[in-house]
Amino acid sequence: MRVYLDNNATTMVDPEVVEVMMPYFSELYGNPNSLHKFGTLTHPALAKAMDQVYRAINAKDEDDIVFTSCATESNNWVLKSIYNDLIVKGDKNHIITTEVEHPSILATCKALEELGAKVTYLPVNSEGVVEPHVVKSFITDKTALVSVMWASNETGMIFPIKEIGEICKERGVLFHSDAVQAVGKIPVDVQDVNVDFLSMSAHKFHGPKGIGALYIKDSKALSPLINGGEQMGGRRSGTLNVPFIIGMGKAIELATTNIEEKMASIRAKRDKLEDALLELEDVMVVGNRANRTPNTILISIKGVEGEGMLWDLNNNQIGAATGSACASEDLQANTVMLAIGADHELAHTGIRLSLSRFTTDMEIDFTIDEFKKAVARLRAISSSYAKVGPTPGGESKECELHH
Amino acid sequence: MRVYLDNNATTMVDPEVVEVMMPYFSELYGNPNSLHKFGTLTHPALAKAMDQVYRAINAKDEDDIVFTSCATESNNWVLKSIYNDLIVKGDKNHIITTEVEHPSILATCKALEELGAKVTYLPVNSEGVVEPHVVKSFITDKTALVSVMWASNETGMIFPIKEIGEICKERGVLFHSDAVQAVGKIPVDVQDVNVDFLSMSAHKFHGPKGIGALYIKDSKALSPLINGGEQMGGRRSGTLNVPFIIGMGKAIELATTNIEEKMASIRAKRDKLEDALLELEDVMVVGNRANRTPNTILISIKGVEGEGMLWDLNNNQIGAATGSACASEDLQANTVMLAIGADHELAHTGIRLSLSRFTTDMEIDFTIDEFKKAVARLRAISSSYAKVGPTPGGESKECELHH
Repeated sequence: MRVYLDNNATTMVDPEVVEVMMPYFSELYGNPNSLHKFGTLTHPALAKAMDQVYRAINAKDEDDIVFTSCATESNNWVLKSIYNDLIVKGDKNHIITTEVEHPSILATCKALEELGAKVTYLPVNSEGVVEPHVVKSFITDKTALVSVMWASNETGMIFPIKEIGEICKERGVLFHSDAVQAVGKIPVDVQDVNVDFLSMSAHKFHGPKGIGALYIKDSKALSPLINGGEQMGGRRSGTLNVPFIIGMGKAIELATTNIEEKMASIRAKRDKLEDALLELEDVMVVGNRANRTPNTILISIKGVEGEGMLWDLNNNQIGAATGSACASEDLQANTVMLAIGADHELAHTGIRLSLSRFTTDMEIDFTIDEFKKAVARLRAISSSYAKVGPTPGGESKECELHH
Repeated sequence: MRVYLDNNATTMVDPEVVEVMMPYFSELYGNPNSLHKFGTLTHPALAKAMDQVYRAINAKDEDDIVFTSCATESNNWVLKSIYNDLIVKGDKNHIITTEVEHPSILATCKALEELGAKVTYLPVNSEGVVEPHVVKSFITDKTALVSVMWASNETGMIFPIKEIGEICKERGVLFHSDAVQAVGKIPVDVQDVNVDFLSMSAHKFHGPKGIGALYIKDSKALSPLINGGEQMGGRRSGTLNVPFIIGMGKAIELATTNIEEKMASIRAKRDKLEDALLELEDVMVVGNRANRTPNTILISIKGVEGEGMLWDLNNNQIGAATGSACASEDLQANTVMLAIGADHELAHTGIRLSLSRFTTDMEIDFTIDEFKKAVARLRAISSSYAKVGPTPGGESKECELHH
């Protein structure tokens, strides 16, 4: 058995998604911008995919949804174009974000700081989320944009997006949310929440890697990141990735249809796994379970290096993560755990397990078994854990960092 | 029979390319940045694809090739980052390009002009190419970049890239070439030609839409267009589009292996078609055949609107173009034909036929027949052609505009 528990990094493409894409490689291969049948034959499926994405997030006809190559591009687009439109060409100077955003937000903000933008990186509380009153207190008349993630890739914690959206609206500040870890996992309704820009990525909900989108409320102005042949109404140029757009439409429909049922099924498996792992001594799960995406566990195991644990699980056919795949190769301490106040040792012991709707009960049972064996093996050779031994009366807790 | 003669707009994905991509959707779906086997199992095929692209253009180990979502992105990247790196942060102020570049160059230059860059749009000669001495005469000490296409999407004309590259080297100016219409169609050797940056796109050589690359000589510095998770050595962030990278590698290998033989075969079919169409009275093909990509014909038919011709051919199962698909929806006069000095009527009568290695002799015969019938039909109802009738002693010519 092999068990994939790294669905916050990427997901398997649903075979139904592959099926709808297939005709668009070697049969219906026309360029949608061409005027002949080879081109126009792609239009019905593209229109359907667009409808599927609109429906999935409850967008209005007056809104725009623009396909991009990934959420990283969507995030770069919003930040860089707001910088050009409202800071370089306008009278604003300030962007607000958080310390725990995805690298595509943080690295872009650093690049904009080098060009002269002022950026505030808000801290998170002990649950790993930014509090609305903190956002409110940093908005000035010069603030061009607030950008806060909808849910954390690392912890699964869901941010108070509705409240932050209201604050931005009151203050007349544009609000962007990187909803990559929310769309397809929990309900995302752009009518219920005031959000001007929203980024999403198909490969997080069983669509292909290499296609994403940006939702733009009321089709508001935003200069392009990628200029050219006027595709996507001039908002994002480049020949349309026809198969992947069609695949993204199918994937978002599959993920969001009856989402409550799907969430319940994934949550049941996640809770079973989490309950079993919490039976171990000296472990800790980050963040209140009720306020997390239903598929995610970030667990720390005293005395066990995250990378060692990852390696051991990998040898036993279980794919997990220490944190964001986008930052996994440098083996640094988990930045989110540092941000929420964990000490450096603890921040090196985080293991993230992220399920999908394809995760089976049998896989969960297998994982519980292998995970416990791995912890025993690694603690037996752990210099730090061996020295102190188990904490007297050591018990495991959920959401314990500062409580 | 249906005949696709719009291969400069996009191409059919080679079934061999689809085959190598397929396992990477629902089987080997890991994120290459993940440390577990699901991720690392993608590495050998990604490394192979990278090798295939290096080999196809004869890049050195010291060079970089960075995968992007398309050549439009590659073009935007070079122009915008050179603007930021050498104009905003440096002491340059000037970019040189041509009047006949792809919209991804022209629209980006317009956007940079709005931000304060000075851009020179060089005119082309009667063959539709820019002459090296013209480039030379516009370079100043403030010139940051020269960007000239390798071959025209509209006419197929091949530009004097080697000579322009030498001039840029002598003057110490960076040189970029949009080689989208060259790679896979004619030999492109970055050792033979001095080019600092080179853009390419897989869907122009029977790879998928939505993947491209930028070649960077000697891995020189260029700030990212898309910041984030440090993929591609920090040069282009975003989860790698694993199947399409693998597909692009296979596609470029298939297109460039024995390219001389493939060119000869395509050229023979193109010349047969062109010779037959030149038998018509009052038609003209743009550009010397010997200096064109071997798959392209841009033909003007006196008295016949390009769109009418396109429509008639389309009704007879032949897919052609009036010009760039990226500008096809607005039905404007062919900008390249205007640039090379054609009058407005002539610029409305251009029909581009672009073949591929999948074009058959039977398709060519069918096209010759249908094309001639379409011209007869449309001229019969043409107010302008009916009024004047055929030109007395009217004969057809290749490359006639100013000769």
